[in-house]
Amino acid sequence: MRMYDIIEKKRDGQALTTEEINYFINGYTNGEIPDYQVSALLMAIYFQDMNNEERAQITKAMVESGDQIDLSDIAGIKVDKHSTGGVGDTTTLILAPLVASVGVPVAKMSGRGLGHTGGTIDKLEAVPGFHVEINNNEFIDLVNKNKVAVVGQSGNLTPADKKLYGLRDVTATVNSIPLIASSIMSKKIASGADAIVLDVKTGAGAFMKELKDAKALAEAMVTIGNKVGRNTMAVISDMSQPLGNAIGNALEVHEAIQTLQGNGPDDLTELCLTLGSQMVVLANKAETLEEARLKLQDNLNNGKALEQFKVFLKSQGGDTTVVDHPDSLPQATYKVELPAKTSGSVANIIADDIGTAAMMLGAGRATKESTIDLAVGIVLHKKIGDTVDAGEPLLTIHSNSEEVEEVKEKLYKSISITKEAVEAPTLIYDTVTK
Amino acid sequence: MRMYDIIEKKRDGQALTTEEINYFINGYTNGEIPDYQVSALLMAIYFQDMNNEERAQITKAMVESGDQIDLSDIAGIKVDKHSTGGVGDTTTLILAPLVASVGVPVAKMSGRGLGHTGGTIDKLEAVPGFHVEINNNEFIDLVNKNKVAVVGQSGNLTPADKKLYGLRDVTATVNSIPLIASSIMSKKIASGADAIVLDVKTGAGAFMKELKDAKALAEAMVTIGNKVGRNTMAVISDMSQPLGNAIGNALEVHEAIQTLQGNGPDDLTELCLTLGSQMVVLANKAETLEEARLKLQDNLNNGKALEQFKVFLKSQGGDTTVVDHPDSLPQATYKVELPAKTSGSVANIIADDIGTAAMMLGAGRATKESTIDLAVGIVLHKKIGDTVDAGEPLLTIHSNSEEVEEVKEKLYKSISITKEAVEAPTLIYDTVTK
Repeated sequence: MRMYDIIEKKRDGQALTTEEINYFINGYTNGEIPDYQVSALLMAIYFQDMNNEERAQITKAMVESGDQIDLSDIAGIKVDKHSTGGVGDTTTLILAPLVASVGVPVAKMSGRGLGHTGGTIDKLEAVPGFHVEINNNEFIDLVNKNKVAVVGQSGNLTPADKKLYGLRDVTATVNSIPLIASSIMSKKIASGADAIVLDVKTGAGAFMKELKDAKALAEAMVTIGNKVGRNTMAVISDMSQPLGNAIGNALEVHEAIQTLQGNGPDDLTELCLTLGSQMVVLANKAETLEEARLKLQDNLNNGKALEQFKVFLKSQGGDTTVVDHPDSLPQATYKVELPAKTSGSVANIIADDIGTAAMMLGAGRATKESTIDLAVGIVLHKKIGDTVDAGEPLLTIHSNSEEVEEVKEKLYKSISITKEAVEAPTLIYDTVTK
Repeated sequence: MRMYDIIEKKRDGQALTTEEINYFINGYTNGEIPDYQVSALLMAIYFQDMNNEERAQITKAMVESGDQIDLSDIAGIKVDKHSTGGVGDTTTLILAPLVASVGVPVAKMSGRGLGHTGGTIDKLEAVPGFHVEINNNEFIDLVNKNKVAVVGQSGNLTPADKKLYGLRDVTATVNSIPLIASSIMSKKIASGADAIVLDVKTGAGAFMKELKDAKALAEAMVTIGNKVGRNTMAVISDMSQPLGNAIGNALEVHEAIQTLQGNGPDDLTELCLTLGSQMVVLANKAETLEEARLKLQDNLNNGKALEQFKVFLKSQGGDTTVVDHPDSLPQATYKVELPAKTSGSVANIIADDIGTAAMMLGAGRATKESTIDLAVGIVLHKKIGDTVDAGEPLLTIHSNSEEVEEVKEKLYKSISITKEAVEAPTLIYDTVTK
């Protein structure tokens, strides 16, 4: 078998066989096939696409290129959730205890990552004492006992994907549905989930700006998941404006607590119930999405979800007094309101730019070495479609620096107000099942 | 400027600017841009093509990446001829003295190359004493004095093309019209020609199997040539069967002599008159192709072309007695005829396979280190469309080995005979001018 022939075959629009896909993934991972041949193949895939069989196969090959987490000692169907990323996405903090409260085991591996805010682990570390330094046995015991635990990523998962992604990133071949879908799915599958719920974001603040692209990605991932034997569903949700109101680490923990108390922002609550229902159904804890939703809604109302959150925090060293006294979370020194300059309806809140403003305050990491300020961030008081009077606060900036003029300027530019009435954007565009 | 943005731009079907093309060609040549980014760009070009402006620009950038031969001390318009390659192509040996005989200066740089037979220099070295070890001044003096001289390629011509071609060769990006056209034209232009005649082959034995592809390549090269200020024309000619009758080094010299005497094979003679006419017109030695053709035909008939060949050979040390006594050219020990097994019409002579048979006899180089047997080769007695009786020789094998069974078997497989009458293939499909 020659890499040349594989490139040529894909260039000419033919489907690659299992053997060909394994040959190139293994050869690239172990350094036998050079970057320059792989980048040519990636560009050919960009233009010629891969069929469902190829997509499943490249995913499998990447999964098998490294370690695979074994969660079989955890009783029940382990369901993982993955979001394609956006601004102010607090869903994981809420969903983990929420679905655990109805009996779904949540064995969450999470990262710190780069972005507008930290990752799930960073956010949870805003809770005094909370830590993820637990070994694999402790992790499994915790999930079996409490239904929910969070650890950092460990092991050499999907090295083929890491190497391929690095190459795609410098050769303009990131933006390809089969490559994005297989990259995401390989990581989820290697992490040991039995079933997967995907939250594919669309809109100005998402990677997939267009609904049709988000839908194609969702369908690609659902097909891959089910083809490789993992029950998979997806939701396509809006990321034209930030999700919920809080953008920042401690601020999002606070918002998660409010949501688990049943007092969260409407959009965040609704998305959690939608994703959560899918997780509950995939875990066989309800027969229908409707039944699952009722169970979740009940546990938000009766305090069981919040109680589950406390149990979870405590089991990993966290101080649960934050749940009843959110003031004990890290607080920023300066709270600066951003008053509306005119009256009208909020027409746009550019999610990316709000995220950048949070970064400027110190809420996220630009490089792996950056440190995060857990206290800072932004809390929106208005969302798209809301009416506002001149002088009324659009949002509050939580800053540890007195100097916030640049951030304010950025924020003003990212929010537009019109005289005409504006409709709130659709939150859930579609649900994709196999 | 970033290579990433250039890849992305071409991937999305946009035209690259002069600055972008220069950036990537220069950066790749000097090693600043890595192979893996260039191969991704090449594959994007494969799919998205380049417009005429881009094609001219990449050609220029490759020309400027290395040395450029200066022929300005040679009086008159220097016209070069280039063939895209085939089997039994003896045209250069004939055209050089033929067009020189009507006053066109021919300053030919040629190579040895790999292939079914040697290059022009190898073939000429079948003439005892002939050599190309002349320096640049001698070369220019010879052309000024005799109108024709041949030297080996020297200098660091088009290093960007060499590097790019090496990468294309291992990434399945050779077969792209803008990349083929710019590669060929950059070498011709760097070699110092004022005007260029292209012989683009089509058919089973050619790189461009399909007429439409050959036509697209011819048009691409003619456009590039004229855009960068070199008068350029092209002929699209048949390479379904070998051109002329001889395939082999000394055998082709013999055939060239016969053609210069007016006794050459019809197809070879016709192609030389067609290409030669274009060369004469481009050199301003005739106003029309018809006038040029008459001049050339005259010089074949009146012996001036042959005389020019003698002058040329002699000026580079060659023994001109070969012209009147071709027996003094290297002769193979064994001459084995290949009799037709059945009677009928010759339906096919697969050019590639005849070339491979010549290689098997030792006429060509498989690697740079191979030595060539100048005496061996094949002389066809029948061409497509000819009738043949069972037992009548189809061709003669000239071999220095008694063992020719394998070659005979290969040749029998490459020639097919049918009962039905067969038409000879068209020789000249088209002529492309600006």
